[in-house]
Amino acid sequence: MKMNVTQKLIQEHLVSGEMTPGEEIGLKIDQTLTQDATGTMVMLELEAMGVDRAQTEASAQYVDHNLIQDDYRNADDHLFLRSAANRFGLYYSRPGNGVSHPVHMQRLARPGRTLLGSDSHTCANGCMGMLAMGAGGIDVAMAIAGEPYYVKMPEVWGVKLTGKLPEWVSAKDVILEMLRRHDVKGGVGKVIEYYGPGLKELSAMDRHVIANMGAELGATATVFPSDKEIKRYMDAQGRVDEWHELKADRGAKYDLEEEIDLSTLEPLIAKPSSPGNVVPVSEVAGETIYQSYIGSSANPGYRDFAIAAEIVKGKTIADGLSFDINPTSRQLLTKMVDEGHIASLLGAGARLHQAGCNGCIGMGQAPASGRNSLRTTPRNFPGRSGTKEDAVFLCSPETAAASALTGVITDPRTLDMKYPKIKEPENKNLKAEMRMLEAPSSEKDGVKVELEKGPNINSIPQMDPLEDHFEVPVMLKLGDNVSTDEILAGGSRVLPFRSNLEKISTFTFEIVDDKYYENSMSSKDETGHVVVAGNNYGQGSSREHAALAPRYLGLKAVLVKDFARIHLQNLINFGILPIQFVDESDYDKIEQDDILIFDNVRDTIQNNNEFDVQIKDKNETVRVYHELTDRHLDILLAGGVINWIKDKQESEV
Amino acid sequence: MKMNVTQKLIQEHLVSGEMTPGEEIGLKIDQTLTQDATGTMVMLELEAMGVDRAQTEASAQYVDHNLIQDDYRNADDHLFLRSAANRFGLYYSRPGNGVSHPVHMQRLARPGRTLLGSDSHTCANGCMGMLAMGAGGIDVAMAIAGEPYYVKMPEVWGVKLTGKLPEWVSAKDVILEMLRRHDVKGGVGKVIEYYGPGLKELSAMDRHVIANMGAELGATATVFPSDKEIKRYMDAQGRVDEWHELKADRGAKYDLEEEIDLSTLEPLIAKPSSPGNVVPVSEVAGETIYQSYIGSSANPGYRDFAIAAEIVKGKTIADGLSFDINPTSRQLLTKMVDEGHIASLLGAGARLHQAGCNGCIGMGQAPASGRNSLRTTPRNFPGRSGTKEDAVFLCSPETAAASALTGVITDPRTLDMKYPKIKEPENKNLKAEMRMLEAPSSEKDGVKVELEKGPNINSIPQMDPLEDHFEVPVMLKLGDNVSTDEILAGGSRVLPFRSNLEKISTFTFEIVDDKYYENSMSSKDETGHVVVAGNNYGQGSSREHAALAPRYLGLKAVLVKDFARIHLQNLINFGILPIQFVDESDYDKIEQDDILIFDNVRDTIQNNNEFDVQIKDKNETVRVYHELTDRHLDILLAGGVINWIKDKQESEV
Repeated sequence: MKMNVTQKLIQEHLVSGEMTPGEEIGLKIDQTLTQDATGTMVMLELEAMGVDRAQTEASAQYVDHNLIQDDYRNADDHLFLRSAANRFGLYYSRPGNGVSHPVHMQRLARPGRTLLGSDSHTCANGCMGMLAMGAGGIDVAMAIAGEPYYVKMPEVWGVKLTGKLPEWVSAKDVILEMLRRHDVKGGVGKVIEYYGPGLKELSAMDRHVIANMGAELGATATVFPSDKEIKRYMDAQGRVDEWHELKADRGAKYDLEEEIDLSTLEPLIAKPSSPGNVVPVSEVAGETIYQSYIGSSANPGYRDFAIAAEIVKGKTIADGLSFDINPTSRQLLTKMVDEGHIASLLGAGARLHQAGCNGCIGMGQAPASGRNSLRTTPRNFPGRSGTKEDAVFLCSPETAAASALTGVITDPRTLDMKYPKIKEPENKNLKAEMRMLEAPSSEKDGVKVELEKGPNINSIPQMDPLEDHFEVPVMLKLGDNVSTDEILAGGSRVLPFRSNLEKISTFTFEIVDDKYYENSMSSKDETGHVVVAGNNYGQGSSREHAALAPRYLGLKAVLVKDFARIHLQNLINFGILPIQFVDESDYDKIEQDDILIFDNVRDTIQNNNEFDVQIKDKNETVRVYHELTDRHLDILLAGGVINWIKDKQESEV
Repeated sequence: MKMNVTQKLIQEHLVSGEMTPGEEIGLKIDQTLTQDATGTMVMLELEAMGVDRAQTEASAQYVDHNLIQDDYRNADDHLFLRSAANRFGLYYSRPGNGVSHPVHMQRLARPGRTLLGSDSHTCANGCMGMLAMGAGGIDVAMAIAGEPYYVKMPEVWGVKLTGKLPEWVSAKDVILEMLRRHDVKGGVGKVIEYYGPGLKELSAMDRHVIANMGAELGATATVFPSDKEIKRYMDAQGRVDEWHELKADRGAKYDLEEEIDLSTLEPLIAKPSSPGNVVPVSEVAGETIYQSYIGSSANPGYRDFAIAAEIVKGKTIADGLSFDINPTSRQLLTKMVDEGHIASLLGAGARLHQAGCNGCIGMGQAPASGRNSLRTTPRNFPGRSGTKEDAVFLCSPETAAASALTGVITDPRTLDMKYPKIKEPENKNLKAEMRMLEAPSSEKDGVKVELEKGPNINSIPQMDPLEDHFEVPVMLKLGDNVSTDEILAGGSRVLPFRSNLEKISTFTFEIVDDKYYENSMSSKDETGHVVVAGNNYGQGSSREHAALAPRYLGLKAVLVKDFARIHLQNLINFGILPIQFVDESDYDKIEQDDILIFDNVRDTIQNNNEFDVQIKDKNETVRVYHELTDRHLDILLAGGVINWIKDKQESEV
């Protein structure tokens, strides 16, 4: 069979299932990536699982999301992550090295490998001929422990690139064109594979830009072939020996077909407040802006910053405007310094920030109220900038730099100048860079390392296996579309406690019911509780704390009309029984504070997909069902993934 | 009479009083400086005073303290400050330009001038042959409006410098030697004037380092002569036409005399948690550190950063250490980039932050819990770093860089290397820099500018003149040593509201009595209230909000055993009657919730320093006194400085 790149990658890593779109497949994971915002919990999960040593080819812990350090917690997290990297055998990328995705690409990405990361933009490394996917923290912890990653076999969507980008149009405009055509759900259940003659016009970093924002299309992954350009890139990184070619077979087929003629594209922009809200820049040109922002993993390359520097060189940005430069890696920043581009930017009035994610994930650089912000970042969801009711536009570095000069949204083609040609210089200092990415200690030394836990970092407590009989109160009865934000809020008030389960659990459901924490604590050890809800329960952010925290407070089962997909997986991972009404009208039979009786549960769920739950003190039962696979059942019965993997490791000894 | 530099500066600017140490003198102010943390209130005060136009030679508004922008408030403040600078005719230094003190030195400081700034390190510009003093916000607002600044005539403390600094010892060690000898109160009531042959070894920026931390000695100001070195410096800044010589007359006398032989100094360090806690570095060498930090107005010069870069060049900092580089100005950063020093620092593993105050005032870069932090900043008061129970050491850039390499506190003389020689390059881009410091608009345009007030910025409400008769409850009866932190806390919870009086007042006295806000609000318009306290009332930070906020809530008088000096001034400035017990034992006669009767107050305080206050419903009076000058009385009767100056301006029309 003639295969495309995606099929080759999947076949090479398939450990279970059939390669039929929609079927669950298990994939061997070669590399993992964690960042600080999700990584602290991953490290605590590895500790709880009793993992001794990463089983992957390469796993790296990056520190890029929260670099502000407004008190000890942030700094303590960095020290904890470093000790955990030493303990478990991961690379540790210190604060100041930059954003995980470009740094991983520079130092560790390899064609033909799978990469799983606890960050939704992990897909960016698909540019390197890898199958790179974002996932929840515990999925990554499992992958580090050597377990496969389970996902539905995607459709492969071949996007043929032809032609050559016009001047003033760059890679960001290619992915914005995809979003213009297909909007933010267009990639769901699909891997997007780019191919065709247009590829030779796109550098490895250009491809990174396109692969990165595959996440905004909802795609499982984005895949590029590993060709001569990837060889050139890896050579420049001193790693050409790790390169090999990986291309689609001649005549390989795709489940879906699409074509983009690069020569027809123009500068595009995503208007507030969705990455799918794309129009030509010319359509919104002239709107006043407060801020122009260059950076993030959606435009991390040398070219992306150098072109902005060349555009503003010798000029001055508009009065009152904030021109924020967020370098994405130490390598990039060093080259920008060496080539005079940082001097050009500073001379024009830019603010130079530390290398990291920064404002892209709302850690600083929030725009003023009621003002427009122009950014090269991947997302403009409402409030993500840190300012409620913000107005963030997404665009290319060319558009951002042109607009910084004028103070209004500006089509860069209307600047009266020649399109700058950028030539990337050599990497002169790879040895020093290597030292910044601290290599894993030996296993012998690693097992002796103590995890450095500051006062805000607490281990995950031991959790019990699923009980066979429990009678539990309905602590909450909720309606439709409850989001994980309502289960456990994000934001700067709650985030500092993401490595402290006891403390973060105090915020659980507080938006919905401010007595939930108190009531569930008081019944935690005696009975535990259940939550009943309507449709689409657990929509929104994938944060695993929204399952882990209520579990810690005694949540044993969730009974709903239906679940949002990722939260369902999280409930299973943390040993909470997820069940649904057979007859949705039964929802009305149950009231808050009713006691539900679950009897002979362990046998029942293994032998039946449907069963009855009794409402105590009412002469009523409700019929419920589950859709758990055998693997899910094993995990649930063990009391969650942590127990399951510990049992498994013990039985293997 | 033969005069020293300080006497010349004072005589030149004297508008009232006698030059006898301890006597109140009034000084004409030529220049002012405000920063964003204090400047928003200063601008609101100018608005409330009805000021049309700054009456000074040059006034500048800098944005350097809070650059994090974790929501809209911070960015809104920047826009407000810019509009106010345009409105009132001030220079506006945009975020990213750097710290007020070095930027003011580069662009605006002039020998022979007086400078008043709403920042305690304003004294740094004494290095330029200026009389530069820190003051409360409303004092600076008054100076902008053309009013004199009143201060007690200081003693002049002549410090003769001889000899030449040894290698590895620099200006920071000179001021640390002063702190070692005299501790943090040693300069109170004094101007420190440096002179002697040792001066020729100290560059203008070295003198800035020494003048800056005069604040830590408690000195009113630090003064250096304007000599050939200052001429050289101003020439390098393109402003040699603004230079003139200003030296002490031969044979001039000083009230106090001191001598430092520079050749005898060694690397010094201030241990936690006071700048006066100074020992030789060798005494604490070997202690493990978490962080090494270069930056702040206490080491803002090219030399200070370049020497650190040369020390770490081609090497790698210790594993797990955070080496934080905080550039102090756009000019410095640009030169560091051009000369390859930023590349050296990045290559060694440093984190490069945006130009500004940053961690020096606890805005980010807080150390991990229980870890040592080594900083070139001026202060190490407990918790100032953002981490409670921190352990911050203050030292020179040489010591900080040496310790970054080893991971332990290191005497830089023990490094096995030659002492780097630093030669400062030319300023190539002064025109661009000039554009970053936006010049004041013309008066014609200025008066038309609307102040840009985001939703968190509120004008100061109109306040009434002192009433003639009031009967008011004792809302709080407090003990000794109540600090302004107890009256109105600082910190990241309260600071965002410093331009919003209504909102910030909700925090008033909350640490002492969480009902204070509610109770005072309910009696605000009807009766108002008084506060009674013991000794040293209002000690600590000079923040004027600690008078303004309770005034807004109806505070009419404060009756205490005695006042801390600055808070007393703030009470007068905001029209609150400050009185003291004639017999301290009368303190016991008054209980919380007693009603005090003030009768015929306006006449009484003008005609008598002592008078009686009646306790209603008790057959008691207490005898009180005040120490108000005629100027103070005028201000009080008007209801505070804002009303006083408005009345004055109207009567002048």
